[in-house]
Amino acid sequence: MKKLVILFALIAAQGFTQTADEKQMKLIFDAALSEGKAYDWLNHLSNQIGGRLSGSVEAELAVTYTKAELDSLGLDKVWLQPVKVPKWVRGTPEFAYMETSPGVTTNLPICALGGSVSTPLGGIKGAIVEVKGVEDLAKMGKEQITGKIVFYNRPMDPTFISTFEAYSGCVDQRYAGAAEAAKYGAVGVIVRSMNLRSDDYPHTGSMSYGDIPVSERIPAAAISTRGADLLSTTLKLNTDTHFYFKQNCKQLEDVDSYNVIGEITGSTHPEEIMVVGGHLDSWDLGDGSHDDGAGCVQSMEVLRLLKNTGYKPLRTLRVVLFMNEENGLRGGNAYAEMAKNKNEKHIFALESDSGGFTPRGFSFDCSKANLQKVQEWKSLFAPYLVHIFEEGYSGADIRPLKQDSMVLAGLRPDSQRYFDHHHAANDTFEHVNRRELELGAAAMTSLVFLFDKYGIVIE
Amino acid sequence: MKKLVILFALIAAQGFTQTADEKQMKLIFDAALSEGKAYDWLNHLSNQIGGRLSGSVEAELAVTYTKAELDSLGLDKVWLQPVKVPKWVRGTPEFAYMETSPGVTTNLPICALGGSVSTPLGGIKGAIVEVKGVEDLAKMGKEQITGKIVFYNRPMDPTFISTFEAYSGCVDQRYAGAAEAAKYGAVGVIVRSMNLRSDDYPHTGSMSYGDIPVSERIPAAAISTRGADLLSTTLKLNTDTHFYFKQNCKQLEDVDSYNVIGEITGSTHPEEIMVVGGHLDSWDLGDGSHDDGAGCVQSMEVLRLLKNTGYKPLRTLRVVLFMNEENGLRGGNAYAEMAKNKNEKHIFALESDSGGFTPRGFSFDCSKANLQKVQEWKSLFAPYLVHIFEEGYSGADIRPLKQDSMVLAGLRPDSQRYFDHHHAANDTFEHVNRRELELGAAAMTSLVFLFDKYGIVIE
Repeated sequence: MKKLVILFALIAAQGFTQTADEKQMKLIFDAALSEGKAYDWLNHLSNQIGGRLSGSVEAELAVTYTKAELDSLGLDKVWLQPVKVPKWVRGTPEFAYMETSPGVTTNLPICALGGSVSTPLGGIKGAIVEVKGVEDLAKMGKEQITGKIVFYNRPMDPTFISTFEAYSGCVDQRYAGAAEAAKYGAVGVIVRSMNLRSDDYPHTGSMSYGDIPVSERIPAAAISTRGADLLSTTLKLNTDTHFYFKQNCKQLEDVDSYNVIGEITGSTHPEEIMVVGGHLDSWDLGDGSHDDGAGCVQSMEVLRLLKNTGYKPLRTLRVVLFMNEENGLRGGNAYAEMAKNKNEKHIFALESDSGGFTPRGFSFDCSKANLQKVQEWKSLFAPYLVHIFEEGYSGADIRPLKQDSMVLAGLRPDSQRYFDHHHAANDTFEHVNRRELELGAAAMTSLVFLFDKYGIVIE
Repeated sequence: MKKLVILFALIAAQGFTQTADEKQMKLIFDAALSEGKAYDWLNHLSNQIGGRLSGSVEAELAVTYTKAELDSLGLDKVWLQPVKVPKWVRGTPEFAYMETSPGVTTNLPICALGGSVSTPLGGIKGAIVEVKGVEDLAKMGKEQITGKIVFYNRPMDPTFISTFEAYSGCVDQRYAGAAEAAKYGAVGVIVRSMNLRSDDYPHTGSMSYGDIPVSERIPAAAISTRGADLLSTTLKLNTDTHFYFKQNCKQLEDVDSYNVIGEITGSTHPEEIMVVGGHLDSWDLGDGSHDDGAGCVQSMEVLRLLKNTGYKPLRTLRVVLFMNEENGLRGGNAYAEMAKNKNEKHIFALESDSGGFTPRGFSFDCSKANLQKVQEWKSLFAPYLVHIFEEGYSGADIRPLKQDSMVLAGLRPDSQRYFDHHHAANDTFEHVNRRELELGAAAMTSLVFLFDKYGIVIE
């Protein structure tokens, strides 16, 4: 009989704990949806500041603005961590056309890839050859490529449900396409935009020349998906089509910049540090609303929501707005280095860098024991339609922190619209839905709350 | 030993069945995402035809177009079911302003509610009183309302995760607000738009005068959320603010229209009928892309996808594009009546009428046994991130079919953006994402496939 009483007491206690968690999460979601700040912050970052390429005036304005906003939240500490960042500039707008017979030209929308060298002042004009990927280069050989422009045109596979998987299957063309084509004597490369939709926006993004000497680097640009389809069709009809493009971009000296950091010091375990963050830099074509203004303002909102719902973290909670994710990862690396040098004990880090869309769940880079622990929280998230709790990628900026003993996590928003906007001129504020953004912030706050309250499993 | 062998055989058989279902669903999703027709059909309905209010030329063009498209699919039968529909016309554009002192006016965006009477030719001008709902009218009494315009301004509650719940909590103001206010002597009503966002679009929608005689009916209009906030703030500062509005709408005689129906006759159980549908009519302000062009083209796509993936339905499958859901439900009622008169045995009906957004799941109006059966299919949908399988509402057009022995279901897309567009001038094609629409069609096709293959539980 006594045993039974204890059992009931246990069930009751468990029931109570559950209810307290449910209650806190309801407070968080209600606050996010009814008096959220994330959308207003994003409005400022996007519409008052704009695209925040590393080293730009806009990036520095974003540092100043977000630091001031964090200052106003009454956190325990707010500071800037200095980071040297690369400064690549686009220069004057790019221009391209195809020429189907002498003087008969059609303009096509292109943009320089981030990190590309300029064309000569007068541009480049040459025969153009279409390939479906770098592996085609070897098949064609130098004789078919030397002196020509290589056109990478492998589209994203629409049958993946996660558009990030489709992106992974294509992005090597953008990242390594120029370096590979240069080895075969190409004079430039044009890459189909990483976009599942047919439209007129070219999508930029980072590229690398690998170990190719500066003098042998060839210019690289993205072409819009509609432009790529038109060019491809034209090439089928007329293999003698020529292509012209001109861009004026430049890699300058590194400049000073900052990670922006705010902290609520833990009340019980101040030595155990939890990070939530996004990256403050963006590409320059749009205003970087989804990539990754959204992740920044959601991360700031995590601390504000915890404070405003009266929750005092047991562990130290930091928001980190990383600088230079897009073309260098200097901020993420600098933060991890600082943590290592100071011998700080990070137990958890969460990044939001997949757009400000309806949150579908989280992916985790952690031990099986911690993954299992998280999955026990699934029912707490079910009323908010947050269902995915699975092993996977966390985020580029927090990955340098990785240790076996910690939990890294990434917010997984609905991915269907992300690549419509990613790195393009239409990554702009009006394509962010306020509620979707707020729901993401609330889901992140809830996960942070649960990890703060229950800690992680140490094996 | 033998027992064990049988057990293994059973597991193997079950495994095989599972794999065949998984395979068919993969075929369906791949086809929807790589060679889908839904988006092109919607483009035509939205951009070549436009808003399709019952009785309008556009509604008739939509009947002709969708019938022709169904004809081209090689179904077993395609036909039109005649339906008499109401014909309400908006007339010339509406106009409104508030007047804070004589001659000092600010224009405000309004639109007549569907079914409203006109104002007098010169419009109505009067004192305006703000209420938070019909229940406030009794508290204020006739003396405070007679001769005035009533302004219903209870906003949608942002803390509901499903925006449809927030809509349910407000829509009585729109539907019954004029009838109730007329009883207290009001001369007109202005209703805050059913929209969670702050913007300048007024949202129309159906209203009813109940049993109020024609001569006592008062005009009713929706005001945009931003307009409502401005008006409310102004009234707080100046209770003597007056309001003017003018609209020119009219209820004409009923006219002839049609439900559009296509059928694949069942190979094994032709007498068991399954329906998939949406409504072909829309409001007149936008082009009705989300409400409910999306549901129509997704329903058409269900039959096309089954045919194109080589699946031959065992039972009879019908797509029904219902006419007049918005302001009469004549099409839904007529279809159910026909089914009853012909003694047809409908076992399943699925409606898509919640927008063309990423599908999150389905809700079911059916017996516990059938709900349990459906929930056993959850794992089949998990790879497509379709998670919600719960009891709930199906759809307005299929509800008249309801019998205890059948399964009614509604597609549940992500609801966050729906009321940004619902019944407003910005319910337009560019706000539909191709992949989100296609994923919805594929999820619907998969559910139809499973019900066709396994039937429903008859108790």
